[in-house]
Amino acid sequence: MGSALTATRRVVLFTEDDPLVLACGRRLAPVEVAYETHGPLAQDRSNAVLVCHALTGDAHAVAPDGWWREHVGPGLAIDTERFHVITPNLLGGCAGTTGPSSTDPRTGRPYGLDFPPLTVGDLVAVHLRLLDHLGIDRLHAAVGGSLGGMQVLELLLEHPRRLARALLVATTARLTAQNVALSAVARAAILADPAFGAGRPTRDPDVGMGVARRLGHVTYLSEQGLEARFGEHRRAAAPDPDARAWLATRHPVERYLDRQAAAFVARFDPWSYLYLSRLMDDLDPFGARPRVVSPQVQCTVLSFSSDWRFGPDHARRLAAALRAGGGRVRRELVLDSDHGHDAFLFDVPGYARELADALDA
Amino acid sequence: MGSALTATRRVVLFTEDDPLVLACGRRLAPVEVAYETHGPLAQDRSNAVLVCHALTGDAHAVAPDGWWREHVGPGLAIDTERFHVITPNLLGGCAGTTGPSSTDPRTGRPYGLDFPPLTVGDLVAVHLRLLDHLGIDRLHAAVGGSLGGMQVLELLLEHPRRLARALLVATTARLTAQNVALSAVARAAILADPAFGAGRPTRDPDVGMGVARRLGHVTYLSEQGLEARFGEHRRAAAPDPDARAWLATRHPVERYLDRQAAAFVARFDPWSYLYLSRLMDDLDPFGARPRVVSPQVQCTVLSFSSDWRFGPDHARRLAAALRAGGGRVRRELVLDSDHGHDAFLFDVPGYARELADALDA
Repeated sequence: MGSALTATRRVVLFTEDDPLVLACGRRLAPVEVAYETHGPLAQDRSNAVLVCHALTGDAHAVAPDGWWREHVGPGLAIDTERFHVITPNLLGGCAGTTGPSSTDPRTGRPYGLDFPPLTVGDLVAVHLRLLDHLGIDRLHAAVGGSLGGMQVLELLLEHPRRLARALLVATTARLTAQNVALSAVARAAILADPAFGAGRPTRDPDVGMGVARRLGHVTYLSEQGLEARFGEHRRAAAPDPDARAWLATRHPVERYLDRQAAAFVARFDPWSYLYLSRLMDDLDPFGARPRVVSPQVQCTVLSFSSDWRFGPDHARRLAAALRAGGGRVRRELVLDSDHGHDAFLFDVPGYARELADALDA
Repeated sequence: MGSALTATRRVVLFTEDDPLVLACGRRLAPVEVAYETHGPLAQDRSNAVLVCHALTGDAHAVAPDGWWREHVGPGLAIDTERFHVITPNLLGGCAGTTGPSSTDPRTGRPYGLDFPPLTVGDLVAVHLRLLDHLGIDRLHAAVGGSLGGMQVLELLLEHPRRLARALLVATTARLTAQNVALSAVARAAILADPAFGAGRPTRDPDVGMGVARRLGHVTYLSEQGLEARFGEHRRAAAPDPDARAWLATRHPVERYLDRQAAAFVARFDPWSYLYLSRLMDDLDPFGARPRVVSPQVQCTVLSFSSDWRFGPDHARRLAAALRAGGGRVRRELVLDSDHGHDAFLFDVPGYARELADALDA
């Protein structure tokens, strides 16, 4: 999180006297938010762009070393020479904003599972309070991929007055049963780790987190992408005669997943994983009733051809639901990529142009 | 395993004096095999059909209650009124045939990870010894889906004189990197379970096995199939205010996976899971060198449209490799189904006819 080139700031936005009232009915305070801003804010405060991050992101998105360095920075699609780009860490995260690994003021220990359940609406309520704190009444645009796109969707549906443009990338309005099932397997791996114990582990349940991350990572990549990188290795002529060595044999893709898991476990919190994963399962803004969608917000819906988590089918259903509600979908496009779900992070051909056009529209 | 209607027989096929010599170089004895036979054996012993099972199968395949009851039984595609059907449990399994949960004669305790590593060739060597024991020189056909198909492929490539027909269903000659990665995640979940310990658990690592089975099961079903069954549930308006209850919330697909995992853990052995999963990763008969495939064996290659484990692409590559080696692929067909990989177990439209035709060809 952060870098030598930038400073992630923190601000307390909710206090005991003015707590955050959550969708579940519980109150949360204090709520501190870690965020960065980059680029000049116009006199009329009309050029602010909110970037919402996905499950494992943080407040440091900007080039040269942030998680969205391909697209956020000077001269990039989300141009910090033109826009005042705001990148908060989300509620429930573990990168500076209050979450389940924060200290519970009542006990002086981490909340763990005493932290309240969250919804995407709760995440967005904190974003709005941050915008108030920064004096931003209306965003030029809100942008996000995956869980970030779900936050943009919530802004669009519940607070359309607060944004002029919504960029919804590699995201969905509702998880499929397969999405829910894969997330459930990852959570089961974390909860199965005895180090997790009753929800207040003595140490991080690294092993369970490692399993969860391996699975998550496989689902973020495409079959063709994995095959291109790791498919060409040769099998051994005969297995190692020792079963422990044989089972420990690492095909190239396994070594890759081992590295990914180790790096992830070192930087991410298992409680945040559980909370943010579960709240995505609950998302279904169009399910309960027909939704009116403001025609005042210009919507752009982007997906990637090889994304099998929130791919083109999800994007098509999302765009159709927005249109059915009266929303204005200016652009709906499937970008060709073999990067799978992770494509939204990368410099896929045509992608930067689409982001830039959406911000200029 | 077994049923009130049938008796699974057992026979010791390798002894200390005549051990099974494995691909890894180690010797294994005793090797006992659990198997069933159904249907009359012709005077000339020409009507024997070997059915090879997949990862979690056993020796009891036949209707009305066996794992392949849709297709093996009187009047079914693999007709026990016409054919002498032989269904062994495979080496390394946990349903009567010697495997890692069998007693190690040197210690009087289960082998666990002291059991030797296996290859598909080792599994087939035991099948051939069983055929010798039964006096079957040449099979009318060998049939198998998934890992069962890999055993049929090994028979075809290494022992073509022993069979006249090879039915290769929902299978592959080589796992993709994604296949390997998903299997690696499942193994990691089992190995992560502290009950697994150093490979000789005090109890079964049920929790890790449950995680592995949940993942496996998701990959055996199609996205559309899961959505059709479990997609229509409604999300809660607000989450339960208690995080433990909220995280314990079960969407219908999660309840389904919980049931699948519990049933699986009760009947299957984690060591067998590790061994059989790993040996599939190592399969690559066409990788090392060009292979000559006997034109004497009639090959049928079937796959299912929604199978994303060993689907139509795998079948196409397999059929192409067989033809390139001079093999005779009489039929290569993708059957339409939304059952995913598990379709090979079910009564998919057109499937029974294809199996029956392949046996009559």
